[in-house]
Amino acid sequence: MSTSEPALQALFDPVDLAALGDSDEITGRLAAAAAGMAERPADLAAVVAPGAGPEAAQAIARLVGAARPRLLAPIAEGRAASADRRAALRTEMARRGLTGFLVPLADQHQGEYIPPSAQRLAWLTGFSGSAGLAVVLADRAAIFVDGRYTLQVRDQVDTALFAPRHLIEEPPADWLAAALKPGDVLGFDPWLHTKAGIAAIERAAAAAGAELVAVEDNPVDAIWNGRPPAPLSPMIVQDLALAGEAHEDKIARLARALAADRLDAAVISAPDGLAWLLNVRGMDVPNNPLSLGFAVLEAADGGHVRLFVDPAKVTPAARHHLGNRVTVAAPEDLGPALDALGAAGARVRIDQATGAVWLSSRIEAAGGTPLPGLDPCALPRAIKNPVEVAGSRAAHVRDGAAIAVFLRQLDDSLAAGETLDELDVVERLAHARARHALFRGPSFDTIAGAGPNGAIVHYRATPATARRLDPGSLLLLDSGAQYPDGTTDVTRTLALGSPSPEHRNRYTLVLKGHLALGAARFPAGTSGSQLDILARSPLWQAGLDYDHGTGHGVGSFLCVHEGPQRISKMPNTVALQPGMIVSNEPGYYKTGAYGIRIETLIVVTRLPDPPGAEREMLGFETLTLVPYDRRLIETALLTPAEIAQVDAYHARVMSAVSPLVDARTRAWLAAATAPLS
Amino acid sequence: MSTSEPALQALFDPVDLAALGDSDEITGRLAAAAAGMAERPADLAAVVAPGAGPEAAQAIARLVGAARPRLLAPIAEGRAASADRRAALRTEMARRGLTGFLVPLADQHQGEYIPPSAQRLAWLTGFSGSAGLAVVLADRAAIFVDGRYTLQVRDQVDTALFAPRHLIEEPPADWLAAALKPGDVLGFDPWLHTKAGIAAIERAAAAAGAELVAVEDNPVDAIWNGRPPAPLSPMIVQDLALAGEAHEDKIARLARALAADRLDAAVISAPDGLAWLLNVRGMDVPNNPLSLGFAVLEAADGGHVRLFVDPAKVTPAARHHLGNRVTVAAPEDLGPALDALGAAGARVRIDQATGAVWLSSRIEAAGGTPLPGLDPCALPRAIKNPVEVAGSRAAHVRDGAAIAVFLRQLDDSLAAGETLDELDVVERLAHARARHALFRGPSFDTIAGAGPNGAIVHYRATPATARRLDPGSLLLLDSGAQYPDGTTDVTRTLALGSPSPEHRNRYTLVLKGHLALGAARFPAGTSGSQLDILARSPLWQAGLDYDHGTGHGVGSFLCVHEGPQRISKMPNTVALQPGMIVSNEPGYYKTGAYGIRIETLIVVTRLPDPPGAEREMLGFETLTLVPYDRRLIETALLTPAEIAQVDAYHARVMSAVSPLVDARTRAWLAAATAPLS
Repeated sequence: MSTSEPALQALFDPVDLAALGDSDEITGRLAAAAAGMAERPADLAAVVAPGAGPEAAQAIARLVGAARPRLLAPIAEGRAASADRRAALRTEMARRGLTGFLVPLADQHQGEYIPPSAQRLAWLTGFSGSAGLAVVLADRAAIFVDGRYTLQVRDQVDTALFAPRHLIEEPPADWLAAALKPGDVLGFDPWLHTKAGIAAIERAAAAAGAELVAVEDNPVDAIWNGRPPAPLSPMIVQDLALAGEAHEDKIARLARALAADRLDAAVISAPDGLAWLLNVRGMDVPNNPLSLGFAVLEAADGGHVRLFVDPAKVTPAARHHLGNRVTVAAPEDLGPALDALGAAGARVRIDQATGAVWLSSRIEAAGGTPLPGLDPCALPRAIKNPVEVAGSRAAHVRDGAAIAVFLRQLDDSLAAGETLDELDVVERLAHARARHALFRGPSFDTIAGAGPNGAIVHYRATPATARRLDPGSLLLLDSGAQYPDGTTDVTRTLALGSPSPEHRNRYTLVLKGHLALGAARFPAGTSGSQLDILARSPLWQAGLDYDHGTGHGVGSFLCVHEGPQRISKMPNTVALQPGMIVSNEPGYYKTGAYGIRIETLIVVTRLPDPPGAEREMLGFETLTLVPYDRRLIETALLTPAEIAQVDAYHARVMSAVSPLVDARTRAWLAAATAPLS
Repeated sequence: MSTSEPALQALFDPVDLAALGDSDEITGRLAAAAAGMAERPADLAAVVAPGAGPEAAQAIARLVGAARPRLLAPIAEGRAASADRRAALRTEMARRGLTGFLVPLADQHQGEYIPPSAQRLAWLTGFSGSAGLAVVLADRAAIFVDGRYTLQVRDQVDTALFAPRHLIEEPPADWLAAALKPGDVLGFDPWLHTKAGIAAIERAAAAAGAELVAVEDNPVDAIWNGRPPAPLSPMIVQDLALAGEAHEDKIARLARALAADRLDAAVISAPDGLAWLLNVRGMDVPNNPLSLGFAVLEAADGGHVRLFVDPAKVTPAARHHLGNRVTVAAPEDLGPALDALGAAGARVRIDQATGAVWLSSRIEAAGGTPLPGLDPCALPRAIKNPVEVAGSRAAHVRDGAAIAVFLRQLDDSLAAGETLDELDVVERLAHARARHALFRGPSFDTIAGAGPNGAIVHYRATPATARRLDPGSLLLLDSGAQYPDGTTDVTRTLALGSPSPEHRNRYTLVLKGHLALGAARFPAGTSGSQLDILARSPLWQAGLDYDHGTGHGVGSFLCVHEGPQRISKMPNTVALQPGMIVSNEPGYYKTGAYGIRIETLIVVTRLPDPPGAEREMLGFETLTLVPYDRRLIETALLTPAEIAQVDAYHARVMSAVSPLVDARTRAWLAAATAPLS
């Protein structure tokens, strides 16, 4: 690495990274950020060294790309090293007077994607799933995972060291209630748990006569040699032309809302809240374009934000953008800032879903009042303004064009007798999207499930699992993209060769639910929980169902999973409001056989009034522009209204997407969108 | 009264009421019970003096009937006396060091129907609505009522004494936050508020620097000369042949459930919980066949109930029925019993919806742990056993027959040109039902709303408001009955003469929602909140809606409004389970013109599986057997499936009800249930 230092330094100059010190450290921190940064030189150069030419971009990418595996290798070898690591952790625990310690898969923001430095669970146990918790006691240890990972955990983890447990059916609190002894001292990292999240464990410990103590300096970190640094990616300004509302205006209106709730301040602990509020993005973690950091929004004087991030992220352009309603400070200044709020007796909102125990405790200890509630950014962020909705429409036309090209090529390849597997699908789809200059990476890892793999709801193909695309089977393809003007998320289920009558029947039942939800008409105040049944009813009539939610919120060049609204069997009281983007994704899964899901993004909109209407009604505009697979539609099961709905949608797809695609794809699209009737 | 004493005493002998002391007092206490007791001599005799002949029954009824108006008159003159009464209350408050006091419309059980002794709000202010709260401060006073009563409160209450406020839009807590001064002492009766109910007022008082104090000895009672006694009606045994499960078995299974929740006991504060648990009924309040009292269910030793009721209610038959798993004690023994639980450190469930602050405070003060939660009787009571469901079916055939006779007579009268008004309708319907020996009174006061009165959702006709049944208008008729084997509740909307096209259109939209809910098919775990949209969708499509819930639980010879399940826009997480009875009652209301509601009771049932079904599905069986008004159905708006559903229902009504009615009614029924197609 040292030989490249001067060149790298030179490339960084435009963003004034001279102050960062040793460039080997810079490379490591860049490598700790989103994988996409290393994989796409042009993007990397654009954000790290705007002046760099293609060659220089390649040079940076090579350096960062080479650093990344070195950084991640020690995490990947978790299983082989887990006996030693568990022993070392126990020694460290004993040194601190702890008889137990919790190791969740979580970062300080309780985010869905977490940086390598927070991969403590994988490093300790070898488990690479997306959710889990290890509990290490002096005489035993267990790892808790949910139903998706009951097989995977046995492959990846030495179960003699960590007994596998079902996170929902045998919750950690129950296990601890039995395992803890009077006098035990169970430690947890207050940065990695919320108050609500730790409550059951706190009760279990109390019932067992044990003590639960917050340990600020995580003992895993103390024994983790070569722990990756915090990720570094430059903060990217989200232009007003894309954001639709200046961050100064957002700060002012949120400050008014806080004051109306008799609050002095709010801690913004969710990085997507921070991104929305300040109109900035980043590449600190995969798929979600986030710049990790915290903010304190103060209600006084029309609103002010104290932003706590690694100063290296704040490029001159970002600093200029933030302006004088935003003060930038180092992450370690957050504690003293909360102390000052506490000393002033402030009432401070802490997000109930993402606010770490550390934040409330610090405010409380200093004399303030932490009040759990909804992140003040959450609802305003969910309600997209007209500029964001327009951006999403544009992103979906672009994304629809890329997918149409991919689908046409796939049909061609299969017709030509090519042998393809799930990984080929993932790669070709990524390639089709990446050809567009505005593509900013996937919004999540593509799910391509052929045959029985389609029935595994959170399936991700690996070389070991990837199935061939066999005729007579189904392919479930769920993917999404980030563009500066919008985030996409679309699932289509494709017939490979001739589908069976059962395939067509089940697909059509799922489609009927999907169409019913898309055509919903409802008054203001209606929540997604009330609408959920529309998507399930056709399946219920046949004695079938699916075990996941029907719709989640989607960000605007932000997280593909966004609250606070959702469409689900679970109660949710957040009313759907014009501008909210949600997914519409019913499915049907036959274990060991196939999976079907149909997903489009829809945006809540005010509908025109029929004659005699007395109340304003809301409904949805469909954003996604990708044809349903006509080969899977059993037209006889559809009502005339449903057929008209499919035909009208297909006509829209054709008219919006065909101008952006090549002639062959246009012909393919014409056939794929031909009327059913 | 004194002249009749010996005769009365003799009549009471069979139920050993000699121990009750002065019979004038007995008469007063009987008169304080359900009005129905005085109005129906046969029922009164059956419960008070089983051996009495018709003449003696008439004598008792005359005595009790004469006592009732004397008892209620001082309450009815609330407005005229309210200046004096408010002044007396303030004097009493000052004597106790209070600067404010809350006077809610509530009894110790937070019941829907309350006895005269709890009518403090009416006595103080003159307001006779079914919900409200007065707040009396030293320098001002207000009365809070909801949207139903904004006009009525101005008619009934001297607004110079009590400023009228909207209960929801200007909540008492907000008003108090502004009105209370530092140092103020606001009193409340801890028997008349729940912990959750008082919480907002507690916060408001704290914010204002005032103190909220519980006052056990209600100051209103101290100044209320001639306050009616607590109601007295004998406890009636609900035979096992009707209840379907012995109360000893209920006690045992609830004791197991409490133990599983690590609870030592539960306070049963809802009289319908007590009635269900012990298989007893009563006539202490109107419409709901309840015997007011409290119980403590103890989990130890397989379960035991301490019942705290006026011993005069416990007839020898009831005492024999209760057996040795139930100990009877006087109401004043409840406090010491809670003290004993507290002293033993017991964990005690208090119902969150009906458990008075007094109960939790008493347990807590004695060292126990009160834990708010669901009344352990609530869910088992809601899930009717097969005997109760069979009873409900029988009650509905009987009720359907009575209504058919009434409807036929109504049609005949109108055809003959008779002039009828709403009160005639109420009286004739009551008469048609009362002809059956098993009729035990109305399950609520009948709503008969003609023309614009139909649009007033909680309308009750009075001589001042009763409208004539004019041709070309609609009549909304909502009524129900109590029978020993079941409780009914049915709404039909009737065309008087020729309905308008708009009447038919709106009626048919309401009917479509009603049919969709009745035909619902859903998996276990589904709540009524998820189904609510089915009843509203046809109205939403037309830009219309209604502002009340879609369905409430209904008891088995118990309360017509019963939890914990409901069908509503409001979130409710209680899953619908086989045996639960709920109403299905969408509506449409055009203010100043007409109201439409269609209500039947339905019971959750396991549906047969279609071929290929993978999951068990639930649905509804319709219990109510009363034809829809065919004159109001716009067949062209119905799908073939909806027409078939109406025709099948009407065929069921005809086949079940016609054997019970006279020939003329049978002919009327045949026409009323003729196929639509």
